[in-house]
Amino acid sequence: MRLPEGFRAAGVAAGVKPSGRPDVALWVADRPSAWAATTTRNRFVAACVTRTRALYATEAPIRAIVVNAGNANCATGDAGVRDDAELAERAAAAVGRRDGAPLAPNEVVTGSTGVIGVPMPMDAVRSGIDAAADALSPAGGEGFATAILTTDLATKVAERTLPGGARVVGVAKGSGMIHPNMATMLAYVATDADVPQATLRAAWPGIVDRSFNQLTVDGDTSTNDMAIVMANGARPADVEAFLEALEAIAVELTEAIAADGEGATTLLRVRVEGAASDDEARVAARGVASSSLVKAAVYGRDPNWGRILVAAGGTRVAMDAATARVTVQGHRVYDGGPAPFDAARVAADMNARVVDLELDLGAGAASGRAWGCDLTTQYVHINADYTT
Amino acid sequence: MRLPEGFRAAGVAAGVKPSGRPDVALWVADRPSAWAATTTRNRFVAACVTRTRALYATEAPIRAIVVNAGNANCATGDAGVRDDAELAERAAAAVGRRDGAPLAPNEVVTGSTGVIGVPMPMDAVRSGIDAAADALSPAGGEGFATAILTTDLATKVAERTLPGGARVVGVAKGSGMIHPNMATMLAYVATDADVPQATLRAAWPGIVDRSFNQLTVDGDTSTNDMAIVMANGARPADVEAFLEALEAIAVELTEAIAADGEGATTLLRVRVEGAASDDEARVAARGVASSSLVKAAVYGRDPNWGRILVAAGGTRVAMDAATARVTVQGHRVYDGGPAPFDAARVAADMNARVVDLELDLGAGAASGRAWGCDLTTQYVHINADYTT
Repeated sequence: MRLPEGFRAAGVAAGVKPSGRPDVALWVADRPSAWAATTTRNRFVAACVTRTRALYATEAPIRAIVVNAGNANCATGDAGVRDDAELAERAAAAVGRRDGAPLAPNEVVTGSTGVIGVPMPMDAVRSGIDAAADALSPAGGEGFATAILTTDLATKVAERTLPGGARVVGVAKGSGMIHPNMATMLAYVATDADVPQATLRAAWPGIVDRSFNQLTVDGDTSTNDMAIVMANGARPADVEAFLEALEAIAVELTEAIAADGEGATTLLRVRVEGAASDDEARVAARGVASSSLVKAAVYGRDPNWGRILVAAGGTRVAMDAATARVTVQGHRVYDGGPAPFDAARVAADMNARVVDLELDLGAGAASGRAWGCDLTTQYVHINADYTT
Repeated sequence: MRLPEGFRAAGVAAGVKPSGRPDVALWVADRPSAWAATTTRNRFVAACVTRTRALYATEAPIRAIVVNAGNANCATGDAGVRDDAELAERAAAAVGRRDGAPLAPNEVVTGSTGVIGVPMPMDAVRSGIDAAADALSPAGGEGFATAILTTDLATKVAERTLPGGARVVGVAKGSGMIHPNMATMLAYVATDADVPQATLRAAWPGIVDRSFNQLTVDGDTSTNDMAIVMANGARPADVEAFLEALEAIAVELTEAIAADGEGATTLLRVRVEGAASDDEARVAARGVASSSLVKAAVYGRDPNWGRILVAAGGTRVAMDAATARVTVQGHRVYDGGPAPFDAARVAADMNARVVDLELDLGAGAASGRAWGCDLTTQYVHINADYTT
């Protein structure tokens, strides 16, 4: 991975994670950068989410993102709020010292993921931030991508080069299962494309709604979910081409997160057509991707059209069973009624890393997508065998 | 189980189920009876649901309920609609013949549960209805309760006697997992209490919202869900006492269904307090009871307050983490922040047939309940190992 022009990054092991793996990450722009962000819709939020929302409202540009993994700094009270602010202060001071140029704490966005209800190990975090600032490099993207992981099995990276040479690079983390809790989703995208902040902020929520927000592993949102894009404006770029690349990256990261869902053997890709509206299409797609019965059927390689129709119908979107169609891995299995299909052939084709489910609701012309993964016995083991 | 005065019931094995177990059920009142019904909220519905809604709208009284298990008569097109009508016609004729008094098809409510997308085996159903009519008896309640089951492990029955002697008797079926599909919930309650139909119809939807609709095993609704209460008016009764008994029966049946959830080892009983409204309390309680992470934690006997708060927060009801409280099996584990608790003791107490989770949202004075079960590896096996 090559970072866009004018960005440096780093990830270091600071001892926040008991495993000793990298856990403090820093991503710095060479100049004040336009940015857009979305944060979790959960009502129970971590200190970094509250702080990011406040920074966001000022509309001021940012210079850096600092993230720690291993501790979510959530349900940690007033001390947690102070610790979160100190992350930004420490990062600003460390980068400023390294570069010989000042940086304001309010130019640094914080992010955390990991255990909740436990005070941040601030000594480790402080030294980690200092070390990360010293390690900043244009080649540090992979290090950043590694240091934000929790129990993810692989880094998630996506990149595009635009006509004219501007670049867009994104990293994400997903379905880590950590004490005592849930799968925080963090996504960070940086570009040297010159895109006005107003454009970024107008486009980002819609892109997130069509990608990360259509991702379901557990059905639960987390206290710390965050998706941020920043643009330092170093290179001219066509805005349309940029936005297309940005959405492609968001979708690619979404699929990478779903494929790495806990205990998952298969990425579940759902496409809904024939919906009354884009919103209903997304609701239905998410309904199918999050249905335990559908997910277990995919694990069992069973092209179970009944579960798919019922999962969509349960979301109460407009649909017509008499004209609806269901396609599993390219095989039509329901067409206004049960369709004949070669069960052994379909099951064999479902035995894949990616399973595509397509559903036409027969109620309109709108479409939408969602992503998930199969529900496996391994998932239950991972989530039941843990003890607080 | 003793049926209320003036009711007879029966269940017979007619060969709809491949297993040869009882599969056609009949419940008959001696006179036209007031009734109330709720049907599935899924948009994909079976023929019996459409027919029941149409009958309901006429406000005419009913005389009988006929149910078959083993075939849901769903996604069966126009032929399925005709088959469903024939169930009522056949039942009316058979009961009329047996009693020597005519019964109209529109006085018979139909219900079906089982496989979807497969034509009803009408020869078996017809002979089953005739045999059930011949077998009708005041002692036939248990037979009815048995014949509506699919893969349920046990019959679900609840009964109350009111001051003055009127009785209320309810039966239900739940989380059967059958080709290709889902857990249809059927519930039937009969009483000899003299309750006006307007009273029944005003009260029943609210009772169902506080009981059956707060039950979650898969998170999916079914194409055939139905809950019906009928009152033949044979005995005077206090309406308040009747409604209280009716709700107690609905809750008791709900708990019985949840406890018999597929692969479940534990009934999960969630109580939410401190909500901004009754509706938000129910939404939050259902969010907790349906969370895969909470359900897996209960299976693992882990008092995981983080997952509980996050599941509630994800429903976006008003809550305040700084004043919220979480109690697991009587042990306070979160009190505006993590609370100290004896982990071994709590885990031991969670190793029970019923686990109670209590959550105070710290946002108001309203309360609500929901019911579910734990998520087990056995659940995944049952739902993945089936092949269409």
